[in-house]
Amino acid sequence: MFESAEIGHTMDRKAYKNAEPALREALLQAQFKLLEAGHRAVVVLINGVDGAGKGETANLFNEWMDPRHIRTEAFAARPGDQADNGRPAMWRFWQVLPPKGHVGILFGNWYTDPIVQHAMEPDKKGRFQARLEEIRAFERMLTDEGVILLKLWFHMSRDGVRNRLKALEKDPKTAWRVTPADWERLEHYSAFVQSSSKALRKTSTGDAPWLVIDGSDPAYRSITAGQHLLAALQLGTQPAADAPTSHHAAPQAPPPLDGRSLLDSFDYHRTLVRKDYRDQLELLQGRLNGLLRAPELKKRSLVLVFEGMDAAGKGSTIRRITQAMDARHYRVVPVAAPNEAERAQPYLWRFWRYLPRWQHTIIFDRSWYGRVLVERVEGFCSESAWIRAYDEINAFEEQQTEAGALVVKFWLAITPEEQLKRFEARQATPHKLYKITPDDWRNRDKWPLYARAVDDMIDRTSTDIAPWHIVASDCKLWSRVEVLRLLCERLEAAVQHRA
Amino acid sequence: MFESAEIGHTMDRKAYKNAEPALREALLQAQFKLLEAGHRAVVVLINGVDGAGKGETANLFNEWMDPRHIRTEAFAARPGDQADNGRPAMWRFWQVLPPKGHVGILFGNWYTDPIVQHAMEPDKKGRFQARLEEIRAFERMLTDEGVILLKLWFHMSRDGVRNRLKALEKDPKTAWRVTPADWERLEHYSAFVQSSSKALRKTSTGDAPWLVIDGSDPAYRSITAGQHLLAALQLGTQPAADAPTSHHAAPQAPPPLDGRSLLDSFDYHRTLVRKDYRDQLELLQGRLNGLLRAPELKKRSLVLVFEGMDAAGKGSTIRRITQAMDARHYRVVPVAAPNEAERAQPYLWRFWRYLPRWQHTIIFDRSWYGRVLVERVEGFCSESAWIRAYDEINAFEEQQTEAGALVVKFWLAITPEEQLKRFEARQATPHKLYKITPDDWRNRDKWPLYARAVDDMIDRTSTDIAPWHIVASDCKLWSRVEVLRLLCERLEAAVQHRA
Repeated sequence: MFESAEIGHTMDRKAYKNAEPALREALLQAQFKLLEAGHRAVVVLINGVDGAGKGETANLFNEWMDPRHIRTEAFAARPGDQADNGRPAMWRFWQVLPPKGHVGILFGNWYTDPIVQHAMEPDKKGRFQARLEEIRAFERMLTDEGVILLKLWFHMSRDGVRNRLKALEKDPKTAWRVTPADWERLEHYSAFVQSSSKALRKTSTGDAPWLVIDGSDPAYRSITAGQHLLAALQLGTQPAADAPTSHHAAPQAPPPLDGRSLLDSFDYHRTLVRKDYRDQLELLQGRLNGLLRAPELKKRSLVLVFEGMDAAGKGSTIRRITQAMDARHYRVVPVAAPNEAERAQPYLWRFWRYLPRWQHTIIFDRSWYGRVLVERVEGFCSESAWIRAYDEINAFEEQQTEAGALVVKFWLAITPEEQLKRFEARQATPHKLYKITPDDWRNRDKWPLYARAVDDMIDRTSTDIAPWHIVASDCKLWSRVEVLRLLCERLEAAVQHRA
Repeated sequence: MFESAEIGHTMDRKAYKNAEPALREALLQAQFKLLEAGHRAVVVLINGVDGAGKGETANLFNEWMDPRHIRTEAFAARPGDQADNGRPAMWRFWQVLPPKGHVGILFGNWYTDPIVQHAMEPDKKGRFQARLEEIRAFERMLTDEGVILLKLWFHMSRDGVRNRLKALEKDPKTAWRVTPADWERLEHYSAFVQSSSKALRKTSTGDAPWLVIDGSDPAYRSITAGQHLLAALQLGTQPAADAPTSHHAAPQAPPPLDGRSLLDSFDYHRTLVRKDYRDQLELLQGRLNGLLRAPELKKRSLVLVFEGMDAAGKGSTIRRITQAMDARHYRVVPVAAPNEAERAQPYLWRFWRYLPRWQHTIIFDRSWYGRVLVERVEGFCSESAWIRAYDEINAFEEQQTEAGALVVKFWLAITPEEQLKRFEARQATPHKLYKITPDDWRNRDKWPLYARAVDDMIDRTSTDIAPWHIVASDCKLWSRVEVLRLLCERLEAAVQHRA
């Protein structure tokens, strides 16, 4: 992997002085074009051997370009699985993705922990493999979303590192740059390089290859890295071609022969009278309240997803849940069309932001499933985007679950007849009028298309870790109680699993 | 304070049923107008006795209006001074201020901790007083910035609370709503009410008075709170009148009789040759690096502010500092004109966001001083806005300091002649061309106005906790070394202070 980066590439001072001004000018121009076009973001990963010029290169990039449009981030090692209060490992990287038109420079990024851990514990091959797979999927999603990933690896031989440290130590003015940790890392050099080599091999994909740079000569290293960056910026000024649907993709399944859908075949005749409702509601709210305080769930969080046709009763059901919760521990996120900042990011970005810490609950009133529902049906995204979304969503929910979240998803199922009744009632009540728009009527006309999308969604995303609960909701009272009951059961199962 | 809220206000069920629909409709309309106008934000504080309907009212507001444009936040008690990793106490409230056009509902807000602490430790009167003063200043700033503050206090007598808890406990369906903590709080009822009464008295200002609501009858309470909210929303649809300059304000001081300014009278003839520069730079960087790792500064953060005329060398000086830092522990924030999200918030909001945690450094390349420099000179804000900014800035820096930040401010002083040389050099160098714009030449023409603004700024904001360091910068080499030296001295003083 690193052979060609150990042959001692150099560039003489004069050549550097000649090359640098033109490169700077080209970088600046490309950066402004990238910003002006606003099509794509450029994410630069800076990794490699300590002392091979990682920090210097990041500083140089900031010096060469306009730093106002660059976000440079460095992350400390994540102390075990306890960091970020129970958010998934990738959470902190999602927080710093640059918006379209901007450049993000990340060091101490998603490769650092897996590589270092594997170097320390080379026996845990399965874990290493799994984390690299997760990274591949994440980077695949980024490039599919149009992000340009520039992955720079700065290399230096073991002798090179040793000589550098000795030279720095000898000069009293630079001796402070060498710490005991540097010498200790040198001891682990070969384990680190072996682990790195495997990581690079497994994650050098066609869309996001690793570029290995010989770090021993600053002039050579700087100009080489700058040229890679320039190419990435120039690529970024063009709109991202819509990722084609893979030609290996299975053909879309045709509609079922008998024309029936999952939602058609569902029993909608569940009802509850008000007196029973009141009794059961209070009891279930009490049960929920107690469960949320169970010591077994101290390192868990709760992610609730509510989906359903317009007027299915999502909002009023959510209120019956929050009545049993401590206001300091939950947040309701109503999801509408993405705003400008959200459109400048990969699709899932706006949901990642809200992932709760341990002992907290987030309730999504509509969710990331918009991608395979409204965006699919209305053509708000490309076909390839919603087809790959099922995978991305499953991976997203898996990461949440692994970090301790309990993901509970409800589809509130109503019949077209009941929806019509509710639309008409809304139009007759002044303070409910705002809830009904021409869009709602238009969506209603597309009921069969939505029903089809719901079938696919449930087939493809009802997983063992995050199953869908389909709840008959023509009777609001029955629906609310049923949702509470299902939620309590999921929490109880989680308590017993821990106990 | 609470007498009139203990007379047992009620509203019968029928009157409620009559009043509610019209109120809801009016609230919705007012909410949409507020959003459409986008002039002002409405912040609703919900405080009061536990059990008097705080949570229910917040839920009701969310049910009555469109929850997509409401941000509801509840805060847990702040565990001592260790929370938020060393950010000032107000930091977490700044994070959730609603943008213009939106409604924020905050409970467990900035009143909660001071009131509860004072109830527990009534002897520490000075601390209580100081925190209330801080709140007054903060709310004053909010209302000056056009935010509408609706402060609702829900009251209930001690007997009322006791009867409510007993009734809930008696019914097995609602018994879960009562916890041992509720009974414990009842024991401290009178201490809490005394502390609250004092807080309300001290913070009921003309612009942001407290409204006390009898919480014992849900119908009465809800309609009353709703009417207060309606009035606030309706007020918010009008543009905020620019806060008038107080008629008590001292007249602006005339320019000094001899026409000289602080910057005129400064010695610019400091220089350094490159060899000395190299030696001193390395040594100072080493000293800085060591200081930043001093155990005495474990609970401190570092806030660096760089200001200066265009081309004073801010960027290149900052790079000499960051070269000595660990990339995981600092961030450079270049400050330009505010973006849309920033314009929708009080002026200082965008700076509060960046305040660093302990052991971290934030470096502002331009800063909140823009208010009293470019915004004052160019007329980007009203006169009253920059006149009150000095106070707001001093309070801001004081809060940072109290939370453990070391605030170090540099003015890089260059002469007009040196600036001209640098402008011309920039225009002759392709990769520096982007750094010079027509604005820069225009600003240069206003040099005397800027010099005057700098004089006022330094006179009014060079405080004992956050003094300005004016550094002669016509010689870049001398300037960089001097900045590093001053920074090291400030850090050393902080170390000795702790040791």
